[in-house]
Amino acid sequence: MIVAGLMSGTSVDGIDVALVDIRGAGWRMRVRPLAHYCFPYPRKVREAVLGISDSIAYTGVVTRLHFRLGELFAAAVERACRLAKTRVDLVGSHGQTIYHEGGRCTLQVGEPAVIAERTGADVVADFRPADLAAGGQGAPLVPYVDYLLYLSPMVARVALNIGGIANITVIPAGAPPEQVIAFDTGPGNLVLDALAAHFSGGRRRYDRDGRMAARGRVDRKLLGTLLRDPYFRRPPPKSAGREQYGERFVAGLLDRGLEPSDLMATATALTAASIALGIRRYAGQTGELIVSGGGLHNPQLMALLAGFLPGMRIRPSNDFGIDSDAKEAIAFAVLAYETYHCRTSNLPSATGARHPAILGKVIFHSRSGR
Amino acid sequence: MIVAGLMSGTSVDGIDVALVDIRGAGWRMRVRPLAHYCFPYPRKVREAVLGISDSIAYTGVVTRLHFRLGELFAAAVERACRLAKTRVDLVGSHGQTIYHEGGRCTLQVGEPAVIAERTGADVVADFRPADLAAGGQGAPLVPYVDYLLYLSPMVARVALNIGGIANITVIPAGAPPEQVIAFDTGPGNLVLDALAAHFSGGRRRYDRDGRMAARGRVDRKLLGTLLRDPYFRRPPPKSAGREQYGERFVAGLLDRGLEPSDLMATATALTAASIALGIRRYAGQTGELIVSGGGLHNPQLMALLAGFLPGMRIRPSNDFGIDSDAKEAIAFAVLAYETYHCRTSNLPSATGARHPAILGKVIFHSRSGR
Repeated sequence: MIVAGLMSGTSVDGIDVALVDIRGAGWRMRVRPLAHYCFPYPRKVREAVLGISDSIAYTGVVTRLHFRLGELFAAAVERACRLAKTRVDLVGSHGQTIYHEGGRCTLQVGEPAVIAERTGADVVADFRPADLAAGGQGAPLVPYVDYLLYLSPMVARVALNIGGIANITVIPAGAPPEQVIAFDTGPGNLVLDALAAHFSGGRRRYDRDGRMAARGRVDRKLLGTLLRDPYFRRPPPKSAGREQYGERFVAGLLDRGLEPSDLMATATALTAASIALGIRRYAGQTGELIVSGGGLHNPQLMALLAGFLPGMRIRPSNDFGIDSDAKEAIAFAVLAYETYHCRTSNLPSATGARHPAILGKVIFHSRSGR
Repeated sequence: MIVAGLMSGTSVDGIDVALVDIRGAGWRMRVRPLAHYCFPYPRKVREAVLGISDSIAYTGVVTRLHFRLGELFAAAVERACRLAKTRVDLVGSHGQTIYHEGGRCTLQVGEPAVIAERTGADVVADFRPADLAAGGQGAPLVPYVDYLLYLSPMVARVALNIGGIANITVIPAGAPPEQVIAFDTGPGNLVLDALAAHFSGGRRRYDRDGRMAARGRVDRKLLGTLLRDPYFRRPPPKSAGREQYGERFVAGLLDRGLEPSDLMATATALTAASIALGIRRYAGQTGELIVSGGGLHNPQLMALLAGFLPGMRIRPSNDFGIDSDAKEAIAFAVLAYETYHCRTSNLPSATGARHPAILGKVIFHSRSGR
């Protein structure tokens, strides 16, 4: 089955599409990534998404954007198929989160019925509510896929994804799924990207190669204050979002009146330190750290991380055949495949749910009729 | 299969639950209604729904209400099952519409994953987007069920539902589905209920037995003006909603400065006249008119309708084994049953869609795992 995974994260950069050949079932599944593309959002759409996320908006604007994103998601799948010269049997769409309150409620937009209609494929979408309904945080969901991909009988592994938010999946050697621990460690690129945009007057979306952070000096006092955030000490399951590390958080940082490069260096250290804190507390100091997500391209961030975790072997997920930028999109292809076959795919140990749940909603394309 | 149909209309009164025993497939389906209940919304929930419908709201409020309604829908199904002493295999949930723009986009809230988790049943929800994606208006969807229930080889029939909005399904004797015409004729009880609430200072939700209208006199000039609304003359497919006949429309009526009972009489005549206009234009003057919905309990409205359509035989849907108040909820049970079996269930002639579509999203309860 050729499955397209669609992902658009909290940083609202664009639409990631991974085309994945998936066969078999359960722990004997074979996952072969075929191609990956990232199509940036048109600027106006990005602004519209940010405009309604965790803020006040006219219901009509939300609804229109819901359908507009469905069209963009569909177009992204179609374009990916053309580029990779393949068809697609199933689409797994995460949707664009516009509100998330872990353990309580969540809202993803991007109408999946539009994706089904345009692509001619069946769609599974909206994966988080079922876990929330089962008492979970609705996140993180990727750990199930991490476990599938990275479990080793010999080596303890930690999968780290540094997107807008950073999250880890701790997979002890030979562990059963109940022993997997996973949670959002805190900010990933979200704060760094917002600072880069602010200091460049909107011209830059991120601190390219961590250059700005490299020029600055970490303000140890501010870093200490930020690390005292009780979130970092709260035991998992826990999840973070734009609500915690969005505009208000960044405005608070800017109020400190630091030099731009010093503030960037400090925020970069915050991301690295909070990740290391989470890892040391729940995975120990040795084993393999498998990194994916945009943060992998920030050498400053990666160097700090290596410094904080000297006993770990840090490897990009590419070493395991998983393009680090495609990781999340691949994961939602796998989750869609599981749901389509009526299999549960949350890890209660990661989300806090009372039981495993079949995630998402299935939309049948009209030609699926029997 | 025991299917629960869940419906909550534009009048935001409460949650209708119909329990229906459905067997067989396609035009040989057997539909046996078992029980019907209406659970009024808690006042605060009703106010919250009206507060976010077609207006400005914090995304967090919308999302929380989305999950809260999911809980209420689930509780309604569970209570119905207890009262009727039955289990349920499948739930069909329409959801509460908070925005609808025919042919463009629509948003229903009431998270179905919560319904699946609480009831232990699989759920089909959110029926309108698939039709919209296929180029339709996303409404009306009940005509498919009307056709199933009322098609006669001998008698031309019109199914009329007077909910917040009034709609008709025209089923010529022995007609194939392509010949079925269906559309919203205009206001149903929406305007009447709003006037009743306004004039009673919120104590009344509707004009009981049409008593207030009965005391008043129709203002022919105002009625004439209102009937010149181009909507009534526009050819189907077309759909109406709170956007057209909501607060702004009612405020415009109140500005006329008529006596309360005269305004109620005029608004009642507007509902009856616009329904009759639609029927005369697309169904002719003879045959059977099968009525369901709350408007059936308004003798003033029904008397006017009989006066406007002297050649038709008016019958309540109860004559056909369909409790008139349960009609819409029963319809969504049938639509869910069709989707669950991967069958299309929109009528392109009614919605304007380019092709039949499988409506809605399927949510598997975790115990459905294979």
